Amino acid sequence: MARSDFTFSHRLRVRWAEVDRQGIVFNGHYLTYFDVGFTEYFRAIGYPYPDALLAHGSDVFAKKAALEYHAPAQYDDELDLLVRVARIGRSSMQFLIEIHRGDTLLISGEIVYVNADPAARKAAPVPAFLREAIGRFERVAPQSGA
Amino acid sequence: MARSDFTFSHRLRVRWAEVDRQGIVFNGHYLTYFDVGFTEYFRAIGYPYPDALLAHGSDVFAKKAALEYHAPAQYDDELDLLVRVARIGRSSMQFLIEIHRGDTLLISGEIVYVNADPAARKAAPVPAFLREAIGRFERVAPQSGA
Amino acid sequence: MARSDFTFSHRLRVRWAEVDRQGIVFNGHYLTYFDVGFTEYFRAIGYPYPDALLAHGSDVFAKKAALEYHAPAQYDDELDLLVRVARIGRSSMQFLIEIHRGDTLLISGEIVYVNADPAARKAAPVPAFLREAIGRFERVAPQSGA
Amino acid sequence: MARSDFTFSHRLRVRWAEVDRQGIVFNGHYLTYFDVGFTEYFRAIGYPYPDALLAHGSDVFAKKAALEYHAPAQYDDELDLLVRVARIGRSSMQFLIEIHRGDTLLISGEIVYVNADPAARKAAPVPAFLREAIGRFERVAPQSGA
Repeated sequence: MARSDFTFSHRLRVRWAEVDRQGIVFNGHYLTYFDVGFTEYFRAIGYPYPDALLAHGSDVFAKKAALEYHAPAQYDDELDLLVRVARIGRSSMQFLIEIHRGDTLLISGEIVYVNADPAARKAAPVPAFLREAIGRFERVAPQSGA
Repeated sequence: MARSDFTFSHRLRVRWAEVDRQGIVFNGHYLTYFDVGFTEYFRAIGYPYPDALLAHGSDVFAKKAALEYHAPAQYDDELDLLVRVARIGRSSMQFLIEIHRGDTLLISGEIVYVNADPAARKAAPVPAFLREAIGRFERVAPQSGA
Repeated sequence: MARSDFTFSHRLRVRWAEVDRQGIVFNGHYLTYFDVGFTEYFRAIGYPYPDALLAHGSDVFAKKAALEYHAPAQYDDELDLLVRVARIGRSSMQFLIEIHRGDTLLISGEIVYVNADPAARKAAPVPAFLREAIGRFERVAPQSGA
Repeated sequence: MARSDFTFSHRLRVRWAEVDRQGIVFNGHYLTYFDVGFTEYFRAIGYPYPDALLAHGSDVFAKKAALEYHAPAQYDDELDLLVRVARIGRSSMQFLIEIHRGDTLLISGEIVYVNADPAARKAAPVPAFLREAIGRFERVAPQSGA
């Protein structure tokens, strides 16, 4: 995937507290960055998390995550979080995320979220408003799910 | 204050993700350790946080914290968190905390919590059950407040 | 995989600071737990990380991680981290990790580490001492790599 | 102290992972924010931490921290970190920090750093270049130390 495949990016700077004794960002903190990307993506499509979702009786829960560590980020690096929704299934949404420092791909990964009823926390179909907002936002409409 | 002034201690091991590029625990993470000490203290006095408090219509919120960094903790260190309540005021409780590695005092500090109504989050008198439980637990009864 | 497939487990309690507004452990913090499991696994096989590795001119870096979120952990839960090495390749080691609360599987995942020269940080063959120590420790010897 | 007493401010947005079950930023994470303020302050005075300091044979270590929690920050809040050096002693520097959300003061605090030789980690006089850079940057020169 090329950087140009992503409509959305968000810049973030590595904090001192995120860097370990090896002088690199601790491997788990990239999921915190992914989550910042998720927050900003939902703001960008017009439905800030979680209020705009909760108002529609919807919330999301992480179901799966995967990361590949290509090269480490270091203290004070400015990183670009690239985020896109690659697939919307019946009740799940697959986010692809890449973290770049300038032209260098550092991390690539995905998170799959399940849409759920906020109270029962049981999987529920991705609501139409979200499906449409994401469809409009991505240059290429995400595949509808099986 | 001597180590023997504390009735309660809890052991904890420093994690890799808590240590920074200087090879020492990031200064903010000691407040996470303090909070673990707080959790275990409430368990020890018989009122596990927060359920036992919420059941009595009570919750607590941090009002003030202070830390002195005498010597740094390092990766894989086994630390002893010493915790005591030094003073119970009308609506606040002052916790004193020390972090030791063997005979070496690394960190000393305090946190003041305010007892509050969980819903309104307004200060409320420390409930009698808590005042009594802490009084029974500490070898020397904490001073009552002004 | 059954719980009995794991030789090694380590108990850990969920901290207040690890739980988010949904009342569940933030999805990224499970990688911190995985890392605690990694630390304790290396201690158990007789080569505490990182000193025992560095003394042999060896260090490891995360190359890949994956997590499946089956059910969430909550504040104050006691969790069992189950850790095993499933495969040792030429320069990489695949760790499988499960997080259980009692009989309930909450999280399963893997981390692949690459063995590397500590200074150059270039992949290097997994040293014989590590391969042997892991082989002795696991009830079933991990597959040797392709 | 009024907001206008601060020459320097830096904006930051609260992350999901920083908010706890009470729906507010965990009390320890404000020290991470303080540290971001510290990083940006050193960039602003022309000596990015730590490289510009290390290049002059200097590093700093936290000696003391104090926080007052006036009102909690919540998820997605945009916060202004206000930072100033209030006092430079022989080997220490006192930073005052306030965290505001719009016109509301949420947190106030201080951190005292000790200047040290990076290798020996023993206190050493604050170097002249730093004393001068801070003096130039603050509208009112910080008090020289006793």
